Amino acid sequence: MKPTHIEHIGIAVSSLEEAIPYYEMVLGLKCYSIEEVADQKVRTAFFMVGQTKIELLESTDPEGTISKFIEKRGEGIHHLAFAVGNIEESLSELSLAGVKLIDQSPRKGAEGLSIAFLHPKSTFGVLTELCEDKNKK
Amino acid sequence: MKPTHIEHIGIAVSSLEEAIPYYEMVLGLKCYSIEEVADQKVRTAFFMVGQTKIELLESTDPEGTISKFIEKRGEGIHHLAFAVGNIEESLSELSLAGVKLIDQSPRKGAEGLSIAFLHPKSTFGVLTELCEDKNKK
Repeated sequence: MKPTHIEHIGIAVSSLEEAIPYYEMVLGLKCYSIEEVADQKVRTAFFMVGQTKIELLESTDPEGTISKFIEKRGEGIHHLAFAVGNIEESLSELSLAGVKLIDQSPRKGAEGLSIAFLHPKSTFGVLTELCEDKNKK
Repeated sequence: MKPTHIEHIGIAVSSLEEAIPYYEMVLGLKCYSIEEVADQKVRTAFFMVGQTKIELLESTDPEGTISKFIEKRGEGIHHLAFAVGNIEESLSELSLAGVKLIDQSPRKGAEGLSIAFLHPKSTFGVLTELCEDKNKK
Protein backbone atom coordinates (compact mmCIF):
# COMPACT_ATOMS: atom_id res chain seq x y z
CA MET A 1 0.00 0.00 0.00
CA LYS A 2 0.98 3.62 -0.41
CA PRO A 3 -1.05 6.24 1.48
CA THR A 4 -1.62 9.44 -0.49
CA HIS A 5 -1.88 11.74 2.54
CA ILE A 6 -2.94 11.99 6.16
CA GLU A 7 -6.72 11.91 5.88
CA HIS A 8 -7.30 12.98 9.46
CA ILE A 9 -6.02 13.05 13.00
CA GLY A 10 -8.52 11.89 15.62
CA ILE A 11 -8.39 13.76 18.92
CA ALA A 12 -10.36 12.67 22.01
CA VAL A 13 -12.00 15.53 23.92
CA SER A 14 -14.37 15.54 26.88
CA SER A 15 -16.64 18.15 25.34
CA LEU A 16 -16.95 19.40 21.76
CA GLU A 17 -18.60 22.56 23.06
CA GLU A 18 -15.52 23.38 25.10
CA ALA A 19 -12.89 22.31 22.56
CA ILE A 20 -14.38 23.81 19.36
CA PRO A 21 -13.85 27.45 20.45
CA TYR A 22 -10.15 26.72 21.04
CA TYR A 23 -9.75 25.28 17.54
CA GLU A 24 -11.76 28.10 15.96
CA MET A 25 -10.82 31.18 17.90
CA VAL A 26 -7.31 30.35 19.07
CA LEU A 27 -5.93 28.18 16.25
CA GLY A 28 -8.01 29.96 13.60
CA LEU A 29 -9.53 26.83 12.03
CA LYS A 30 -13.16 26.54 10.93
CA CYS A 31 -15.44 23.79 12.15
CA TYR A 32 -17.25 22.76 8.95
CA SER A 33 -19.22 19.78 10.23
CA ILE A 34 -20.53 18.14 13.39
CA GLU A 35 -21.71 14.58 12.98
CA GLU A 36 -22.78 11.76 15.26
CA VAL A 37 -21.36 8.34 14.39
CA ALA A 38 -23.68 6.06 16.36
CA ASP A 39 -21.70 2.94 15.46
CA GLN A 40 -18.58 4.36 17.14
CA LYS A 41 -20.48 6.03 20.02
CA VAL A 42 -19.06 9.44 19.24
CA ARG A 43 -19.97 12.93 18.15
CA THR A 44 -17.34 14.35 15.82
CA ALA A 45 -16.36 17.88 14.80
CA PHE A 46 -14.25 18.45 11.69
CA PHE A 47 -11.71 21.14 10.78
CA MET A 48 -9.61 21.29 7.62
CA VAL A 49 -5.88 22.17 7.76
CA GLY A 50 -4.33 21.89 4.32
CA GLN A 51 -4.97 18.33 3.05
CA THR A 52 -5.76 16.98 6.51
CA LYS A 53 -8.79 17.03 8.76
CA ILE A 54 -8.74 17.33 12.50
CA GLU A 55 -11.53 15.16 13.88
CA LEU A 56 -12.49 15.94 17.46
CA LEU A 57 -14.18 12.96 19.14
CA GLU A 58 -16.57 13.30 22.06
CA SER A 59 -18.00 10.13 23.54
CA THR A 60 -21.76 9.62 23.59
CA ASP A 61 -21.49 6.60 25.90
CA PRO A 62 -19.55 6.24 29.18
CA GLU A 63 -18.69 2.67 28.09
CA GLY A 64 -17.45 3.77 24.64
CA THR A 65 -13.80 3.61 23.55
CA ILE A 66 -13.35 7.40 23.69
CA SER A 67 -14.64 7.55 27.28
CA LYS A 68 -12.29 4.74 28.24
CA PHE A 69 -9.37 6.41 26.46
CA ILE A 70 -9.91 9.72 28.29
CA GLU A 71 -10.40 7.94 31.60
CA LYS A 72 -7.07 6.17 31.19
CA ARG A 73 -4.89 8.77 29.44
CA GLY A 74 -6.76 12.08 29.48
CA GLU A 75 -7.77 14.10 26.46
CA GLY A 76 -5.37 13.95 23.52
CA ILE A 77 -4.48 12.48 20.15
CA HIS A 78 -6.35 9.22 19.68
CA HIS A 79 -5.57 7.96 16.19
CA LEU A 80 -3.95 8.67 12.85
CA ALA A 81 -5.77 8.03 9.58
CA PHE A 82 -4.14 7.50 6.19
CA ALA A 83 -5.99 8.01 2.90
CA VAL A 84 -5.54 5.02 0.60
CA GLY A 85 -6.69 4.34 -2.95
CA ASN A 86 -8.06 0.85 -2.36
CA ILE A 87 -8.85 -0.08 1.21
CA GLU A 88 -9.65 -3.77 0.57
CA GLU A 89 -6.33 -4.25 -1.22
CA SER A 90 -4.47 -2.38 1.55
CA LEU A 91 -6.04 -4.55 4.25
CA SER A 92 -5.07 -7.72 2.38
CA GLU A 93 -1.47 -6.55 2.01
CA LEU A 94 -1.24 -5.54 5.68
CA SER A 95 -2.73 -8.81 6.82
CA LEU A 96 -0.22 -10.74 4.68
CA ALA A 97 2.56 -8.63 6.23
CA GLY A 98 1.43 -9.83 9.66
CA VAL A 99 -0.31 -6.64 10.82
CA LYS A 100 -3.13 -7.32 13.27
CA LEU A 101 -6.36 -5.80 11.95
CA ILE A 102 -9.14 -4.53 14.21
CA ASP A 103 -11.46 -4.48 11.20
CA GLN A 104 -11.01 -7.42 8.82
CA SER A 105 -13.06 -5.61 6.21
CA PRO A 106 -14.03 -1.95 5.76
CA ARG A 107 -17.01 -0.39 7.48
CA LYS A 108 -18.69 2.98 7.14
CA GLY A 109 -17.14 5.85 9.13
CA ALA A 110 -17.79 9.58 9.49
CA GLU A 111 -18.35 11.53 6.26
CA GLY A 112 -19.39 8.34 4.45
CA LEU A 113 -15.81 7.06 4.13
CA SER A 114 -14.90 3.37 4.06
CA ILE A 115 -12.67 2.86 7.07
CA ALA A 116 -10.77 0.16 8.92
CA PHE A 117 -8.54 0.24 11.99
CA LEU A 118 -5.20 -1.52 12.53
CA HIS A 119 -4.22 -2.71 15.99
CA PRO A 120 -1.67 -0.49 17.78
CA LYS A 121 0.22 -3.62 18.87
CA SER A 122 1.22 -4.08 15.22
CA THR A 123 1.90 -0.42 14.49
CA PHE A 124 4.39 0.66 17.15
CA GLY A 125 1.69 2.04 19.44
CA VAL A 126 -0.18 4.15 16.91
CA LEU A 127 -3.88 3.38 16.56
CA THR A 128 -3.98 3.58 12.76
CA GLU A 129 -6.98 3.97 10.49
CA LEU A 130 -7.20 3.54 6.74
CA CYS A 131 -9.78 5.58 4.82
CA GLU A 132 -11.03 5.38 1.27
CA ASP A 133 -13.47 7.89 -0.14
CA LYS A 134 -15.48 5.72 -2.53
CA ASN A 135 -17.68 8.70 -3.43
CA LYS A 136 -14.71 10.29 -5.18
CA LYS A 137 -14.43 7.48 -7.72
CA MET B 1 -2.95 32.64 13.56
CA LYS B 2 -3.94 30.39 10.72
CA PRO B 3 -1.91 27.20 10.17
CA THR B 4 -1.41 26.34 6.51
CA HIS B 5 -1.11 22.57 7.01
CA ILE B 6 0.00 19.85 9.39
CA GLU B 7 3.79 20.14 9.19
CA HIS B 8 4.40 16.83 10.95
CA ILE B 9 3.18 14.27 13.43
CA GLY B 10 5.72 13.27 16.08
CA ILE B 11 5.64 9.61 17.09
CA ALA B 12 7.66 8.22 20.01
CA VAL B 13 9.30 4.86 19.32
CA SER B 14 11.71 2.77 21.37
CA SER B 15 13.95 2.04 18.41
CA LEU B 16 14.21 3.68 14.99
CA GLU B 17 15.85 0.53 13.65
CA GLU B 18 12.79 -1.52 14.57
CA ALA B 19 10.14 1.03 13.56
CA ILE B 20 11.56 2.23 10.22
CA PRO B 21 11.04 -1.12 8.42
CA TYR B 22 7.36 -1.05 9.41
CA TYR B 23 6.90 2.45 7.95
CA GLU B 24 8.88 1.58 4.82
CA MET B 25 7.96 -1.99 4.03
CA VAL B 26 4.47 -2.26 5.49
CA LEU B 27 3.06 1.27 5.05
CA GLY B 28 5.07 1.90 1.87
CA LEU B 29 6.59 5.24 2.95
CA LYS B 30 10.20 6.25 2.33
CA CYS B 31 12.54 7.35 5.11
CA TYR B 32 14.30 10.34 3.55
CA SER B 33 16.30 11.56 6.54
CA ILE B 34 17.66 10.50 9.90
CA GLU B 35 18.86 13.32 12.12
CA GLU B 36 19.97 13.71 15.72
CA VAL B 37 18.56 16.74 17.54
CA ALA B 38 20.93 16.97 20.51
CA ASP B 39 18.95 19.80 22.10
CA GLN B 40 15.84 17.59 22.33
CA LYS B 41 17.78 14.41 23.16
CA VAL B 42 16.32 12.51 20.22
CA ARG B 43 17.20 10.82 16.97
CA THR B 44 14.52 11.44 14.36
CA ALA B 45 13.51 9.66 11.16
CA PHE B 46 11.34 11.43 8.58
CA PHE B 47 8.80 10.15 6.06
CA MET B 48 6.65 12.27 3.74
CA VAL B 49 2.92 11.53 3.28
CA GLY B 50 1.32 14.15 1.06
CA GLN B 51 1.95 17.56 2.67
CA THR B 52 2.80 16.10 6.07
CA LYS B 53 5.86 14.47 7.59
CA ILE B 54 5.87 11.62 10.01
CA GLU B 55 8.69 12.21 12.50
CA LEU B 56 9.70 9.13 14.47
CA LEU B 57 11.42 10.06 17.72
CA GLU B 58 13.86 7.79 19.52
CA SER B 59 15.32 8.98 22.79
CA THR B 60 19.09 9.34 23.13
CA ASP B 61 18.85 9.83 26.90
CA PRO B 62 16.99 7.76 29.52
CA GLU B 63 16.12 11.04 31.27
CA GLY B 64 14.82 12.70 28.09
CA THR B 65 11.16 13.57 27.47
CA ILE B 66 10.69 10.79 24.91
CA SER B 67 12.04 8.15 27.31
CA LYS B 68 9.70 9.46 30.01
CA PHE B 69 6.75 9.50 27.61
CA ILE B 70 7.31 5.87 26.55
CA GLU B 71 7.85 4.79 30.15
CA LYS B 72 4.51 6.31 31.15
CA ARG B 73 2.31 5.68 28.11
CA GLY B 74 4.16 3.33 25.79
CA GLU B 75 5.12 4.05 22.19
CA GLY B 76 2.68 6.20 20.24
CA ILE B 77 1.75 9.63 18.92
CA HIS B 78 3.63 12.27 20.87
CA HIS B 79 2.80 15.63 19.31
CA LEU B 80 1.13 17.47 16.46
CA ALA B 81 2.91 20.25 14.56
CA PHE B 82 1.23 23.01 12.57
CA ALA B 83 3.04 24.99 9.87
CA VAL B 84 2.57 28.72 10.34
CA GLY B 85 3.66 31.72 8.30
CA ASN B 86 5.07 33.79 11.16
CA ILE B 87 5.92 31.93 14.33
CA GLU B 88 6.74 35.00 16.48
CA GLU B 89 3.38 36.57 15.60
CA SER B 90 1.56 33.29 16.25
CA LEU B 91 3.17 32.92 19.69
CA SER B 92 2.19 36.49 20.62
CA GLU B 93 -1.41 35.89 19.57
CA LEU B 94 -1.59 32.59 21.47
CA SER B 95 -0.06 34.11 24.56
CA LEU B 96 -2.60 36.95 24.45
CA ALA B 97 -5.37 34.36 24.09
CA GLY B 98 -4.17 32.78 27.34
CA VAL B 99 -2.45 29.72 25.87
CA LYS B 100 0.42 28.48 28.06
CA LEU B 101 3.63 28.38 26.00
CA ILE B 102 6.42 25.89 26.67
CA ASP B 103 8.71 28.00 24.47
CA GLN B 104 8.23 31.76 24.87
CA SER B 105 10.23 32.33 21.71
CA PRO B 106 11.17 30.07 18.79
CA ARG B 107 14.19 27.77 18.86
CA LYS B 108 15.82 25.61 16.21
CA GLY B 109 14.28 22.18 15.62
CA ALA B 110 14.91 19.29 13.24
CA GLU B 111 15.42 20.19 9.56
CA GLY B 112 16.44 23.74 10.53
CA LEU B 113 12.87 24.84 11.24
CA SER B 114 11.98 27.49 13.81
CA ILE B 115 9.79 25.71 16.33
CA ALA B 116 7.94 26.32 19.59
CA PHE B 117 5.77 24.07 21.74
CA LEU B 118 2.46 24.91 23.41
CA HIS B 119 1.54 23.31 26.72
CA PRO B 120 -1.02 20.46 26.44
CA LYS B 121 -2.87 21.89 29.45
CA SER B 122 -3.91 24.79 27.22
CA THR B 123 -4.62 22.73 24.11
CA PHE B 124 -7.09 20.07 25.29
CA GLY B 125 -4.38 17.49 25.88
CA VAL B 126 -2.55 17.78 22.57
CA LEU B 127 1.15 18.60 22.81
CA THR B 128 1.20 21.14 19.99
CA GLU B 129 4.17 22.48 18.06
CA LEU B 130 4.33 25.43 15.71
CA CYS B 131 6.88 25.37 12.87
CA GLU B 132 8.06 28.03 10.48
CA ASP B 133 10.46 27.28 7.68
CA LYS B 134 12.45 30.51 7.48
CA ASN B 135 14.60 29.04 4.70
CA LYS B 136 11.59 29.13 2.38
CA LYS B 137 11.25 32.90 2.58
